[in-house]
Amino acid sequence: MDELSSFQYSLVYNAFSFTFAAMAATTLFLWISRSQVAPKYKTAVTISGLVCAIAAYHYFRIFESWEAAYVVEGGRVIASGLAFNDAYRYVDWLLTVPLLLIELVLVMGLSRSETVSKSTKLGLAAALMIVLGYPGEIADDNTTRAIWGTLSTIPFLYIVYELFSGLGSSIANQHEGVRKLLKQARLLTFASWGFYPIVYMAPFIGLTGATAETTIQIGYTIADLVAKAVVGVLIYLIAVRKSAIESTIADERETAKEALPV
Amino acid sequence: MDELSSFQYSLVYNAFSFTFAAMAATTLFLWISRSQVAPKYKTAVTISGLVCAIAAYHYFRIFESWEAAYVVEGGRVIASGLAFNDAYRYVDWLLTVPLLLIELVLVMGLSRSETVSKSTKLGLAAALMIVLGYPGEIADDNTTRAIWGTLSTIPFLYIVYELFSGLGSSIANQHEGVRKLLKQARLLTFASWGFYPIVYMAPFIGLTGATAETTIQIGYTIADLVAKAVVGVLIYLIAVRKSAIESTIADERETAKEALPV
Repeated sequence: MDELSSFQYSLVYNAFSFTFAAMAATTLFLWISRSQVAPKYKTAVTISGLVCAIAAYHYFRIFESWEAAYVVEGGRVIASGLAFNDAYRYVDWLLTVPLLLIELVLVMGLSRSETVSKSTKLGLAAALMIVLGYPGEIADDNTTRAIWGTLSTIPFLYIVYELFSGLGSSIANQHEGVRKLLKQARLLTFASWGFYPIVYMAPFIGLTGATAETTIQIGYTIADLVAKAVVGVLIYLIAVRKSAIESTIADERETAKEALPV
Repeated sequence: MDELSSFQYSLVYNAFSFTFAAMAATTLFLWISRSQVAPKYKTAVTISGLVCAIAAYHYFRIFESWEAAYVVEGGRVIASGLAFNDAYRYVDWLLTVPLLLIELVLVMGLSRSETVSKSTKLGLAAALMIVLGYPGEIADDNTTRAIWGTLSTIPFLYIVYELFSGLGSSIANQHEGVRKLLKQARLLTFASWGFYPIVYMAPFIGLTGATAETTIQIGYTIADLVAKAVVGVLIYLIAVRKSAIESTIADERETAKEALPV
């Protein structure tokens, strides 16, 4: 990555600025709109906003690190000697990935004991997945990378199992008005996460150089936007709809009670 | 654009600073005033503020990029060698243009299915319009510019058709107290958007150099102020008026019910 084309440099530069703006905007939207959901779902919306706020902070840092890593000289974009700090991504994920799973659990509105147990199990598994992936990410040789990558896959598979088996039966018990949205949120979470291991494996297939670097940065950015901002808005929509459904049911019960002969 | 007159440089510089202040102020006004509209219209006002917040961020960046792109030496304003990053505008539009259409749909207060279907169709068409315009904007030759410009016109025409035909019948069904305001919001949206293709076509008629650059930047700035801040305040006024009208109607119904012989 000693030299990028001017187009590649600008594309990544603008994608980082875009993502900072999109994450910050989604944060504000979620926190302002939080007043529109029932108390039961407020924490899910608060955390969805928090995930986007943490991502906005890290994209601001990533943007500045990218700017510092290259200098433009006579139309050429060359490495400045300062390394682009990709570790910001791991630091971000260590905070946001457990929270992403917790927001999904919270919006389901399960019993308190189920919420605590599922949040703890999924949150710890997510943190473990990130921690185990990092030594491989910074390793110089592909063998070390493969070992830590494989270890990191174990909690990942456990999360996928929990999302589709454990949470699957809970989704089946949800009101039909939100079941489709919940499945979409789960699918988007899973699909966007699927991108990260692909990038992790890029060095194994000899994917290096300026084009690879550009593709990887744009790919991570799209995956983060889907996993955090798009899923966050979906969580909000689910919370709004569940609040409306539950208040209608409560109203109907109230009316039915009033109609009873005293 | 190797050299601007001192007047041209300052005019654009001050216009960018003005627009940052105006967008940030409108954001704060809309978010603070959000508590004064009925729950049904809160999201429309939240999103109107969000559009101005995203624009404020980008005008801050545009301002800084403009400052970095020129150096003042002995009374002359010459290019510093760092390119002025016009891409911030496209990045901004990619986020704000779909949201602008969505705020217009939301303030209409249509049924949920109509709101979802119109927001999705208009939002996607708007994003497609921006994405198709960008390769032309950065192209060096006028043929490529013309091809992408033409492709971008297709979703634009679809949006105009939807605004005047699809939304037209919905506007006709609105209370007469807000019909005029809604038509104004729609007209301002359409009229301010009309400026962008004119600027896009500037290179075709040989419009280049310092005067053209100044005209284009001032023109974009005025168009953005109208499309985002002025339309945002209109959306708020419509929301306030509809909230008042609907609460009066609800009160009258309540009174009529009480007046019935038991």
